[in-house]
Amino acid sequence: MDEQAVIDTFFRHLGAVRTDVVLGIGDDAALLRPEAGCELVQTTDVLVEHVHFTPGSPPRSLGHRALAINLSDLAAMGANPCWALMALTLPNIDEAWLAEFAHGFGRLARVHKVALVGGNLSRGPLAITVQCTGQVPAGRALRRSGGHAGDELWVSGTLGDAALGRTIGERDGENADTQWLRSRFEYPTPRLELGAALRELASACIDVSDGLFSDAPRLAASSGCGVWLDVEQLPVSQAARTMTGTAVWQHALAGGEDYELCLSAPAKEAPRLQALAAQHAVPLQRCGQLRAEPGLELRRGSDVIQFSLSRFDHFSP
Amino acid sequence: MDEQAVIDTFFRHLGAVRTDVVLGIGDDAALLRPEAGCELVQTTDVLVEHVHFTPGSPPRSLGHRALAINLSDLAAMGANPCWALMALTLPNIDEAWLAEFAHGFGRLARVHKVALVGGNLSRGPLAITVQCTGQVPAGRALRRSGGHAGDELWVSGTLGDAALGRTIGERDGENADTQWLRSRFEYPTPRLELGAALRELASACIDVSDGLFSDAPRLAASSGCGVWLDVEQLPVSQAARTMTGTAVWQHALAGGEDYELCLSAPAKEAPRLQALAAQHAVPLQRCGQLRAEPGLELRRGSDVIQFSLSRFDHFSP
Repeated sequence: MDEQAVIDTFFRHLGAVRTDVVLGIGDDAALLRPEAGCELVQTTDVLVEHVHFTPGSPPRSLGHRALAINLSDLAAMGANPCWALMALTLPNIDEAWLAEFAHGFGRLARVHKVALVGGNLSRGPLAITVQCTGQVPAGRALRRSGGHAGDELWVSGTLGDAALGRTIGERDGENADTQWLRSRFEYPTPRLELGAALRELASACIDVSDGLFSDAPRLAASSGCGVWLDVEQLPVSQAARTMTGTAVWQHALAGGEDYELCLSAPAKEAPRLQALAAQHAVPLQRCGQLRAEPGLELRRGSDVIQFSLSRFDHFSP
Repeated sequence: MDEQAVIDTFFRHLGAVRTDVVLGIGDDAALLRPEAGCELVQTTDVLVEHVHFTPGSPPRSLGHRALAINLSDLAAMGANPCWALMALTLPNIDEAWLAEFAHGFGRLARVHKVALVGGNLSRGPLAITVQCTGQVPAGRALRRSGGHAGDELWVSGTLGDAALGRTIGERDGENADTQWLRSRFEYPTPRLELGAALRELASACIDVSDGLFSDAPRLAASSGCGVWLDVEQLPVSQAARTMTGTAVWQHALAGGEDYELCLSAPAKEAPRLQALAAQHAVPLQRCGQLRAEPGLELRRGSDVIQFSLSRFDHFSP
């Protein structure tokens, strides 16, 4: 199977059909019709074998994740996703692998109405680079920089599951909890509908990709603030709690790859945020606050506590 | 130097400053303001070490080429380039390498008013993925598919130089010719101004990246035609002729990596095309014609000749 056959078989008709795609895969470039009154929102993310995933990872998960991590960036901007390009570097043509990979990518793309409009196929070490473009009404995008001291900090979903799911091994057994945690790593859910709804409520937003311990201070610093977090208020799943016991907050804080949204909002918006969470069936939990003093303060109830990533690296679940 | 320092030092202010960039590098995604009445033109291209370039290749050339090969796709659509994203995978942080790489990318970006609005930096095998978005007045883009039987086929610049430049070694000596041929490989010139001007004249267009032998039939097939080429009319440089003698047409036909434009146009447009070439100081040479019969016919003056890529692969310059 040559390059053209791979594109025709697996990629030409992958993703959603959109009327704003004037010309998709097959020419020197794609032609797209932007919506009047909107701004474009563009991001790119990469999955490299041995770095972001281990050899033998399920290709369906890789296809899903390669798109999901981009869509999560668009969600954090409050954008509606539209079009994707994919640069795929493969050591060899494995049709079974490609079919599964395309299935994972294509299903998520269709759910979120994303058209795959172009790409590139090369020989080389296995790596997947996806670039996504979304649209947002002009001037309405969420940014990291819009927060104010006093705004409350909220997080969607639950934290720490993906990092646990990534490292689950045979010794952990195969049960409903380990399966669920693994699925949280392999099939993250980009919070696109929530992100779009947050345009009216949130003052700032970031997606939690490196762990809340890293990402909440990024939002705060961009907003010219510091932040405190109460580790007892971090949203955690029952499965994560079962697996890690009293250490669950450390995993929630530092795990990474959650692809949940962290947002700030004025305190008066709390009832509307709770209503939004119910409407979208996505938990939103308040777990901290922006403040004038720079940096990150961790609290456990009323106590200020210490935590460092380097110490956490040596913990085992 | 960590990831953030690399971005801040080498990439945050690389490329052109554009007023339509609402928000560049530094948030979850970039925010861009598209121009009313335009369509977006999107493409992505990849350079992988050991596949598209050899270890030790000059990083300034890699930065230039990674952008140029994308810009060439936009040129073939008649688009005006606007914004780029770059996903860079590096085995290690080498500041001298990064400075040269950024210099090569940045200089070409500024020449063509391209803003670098986002990207991704990862550890891994050396690879550079660039994605470019341009704009074109709605309905005015050049496509591969617009040609008609009888349209004449034209090529910009000269063909075969880059493929010769790529393989120049010590045995070829160091002189003005070898230096010039090498620069044609290392620093290809995307034909953006010519491409934009061709919107009014060409019926179809493609960029010559795999060699005219492959790319001219692609244009023809997309247009529902076949094509003949006269190998004696292929545009070749004096340096390529000096190096290859009577085999020069084979290199011009099959070399690849030219990043010139191949276009079709009705015969009546010949004078305007010649005027355009003079105006933009880019040679345009007529070397064939689209015809109803499918496939590719090679001619040498009035004789039909045979040529195969597999035979060519065994030639040496």
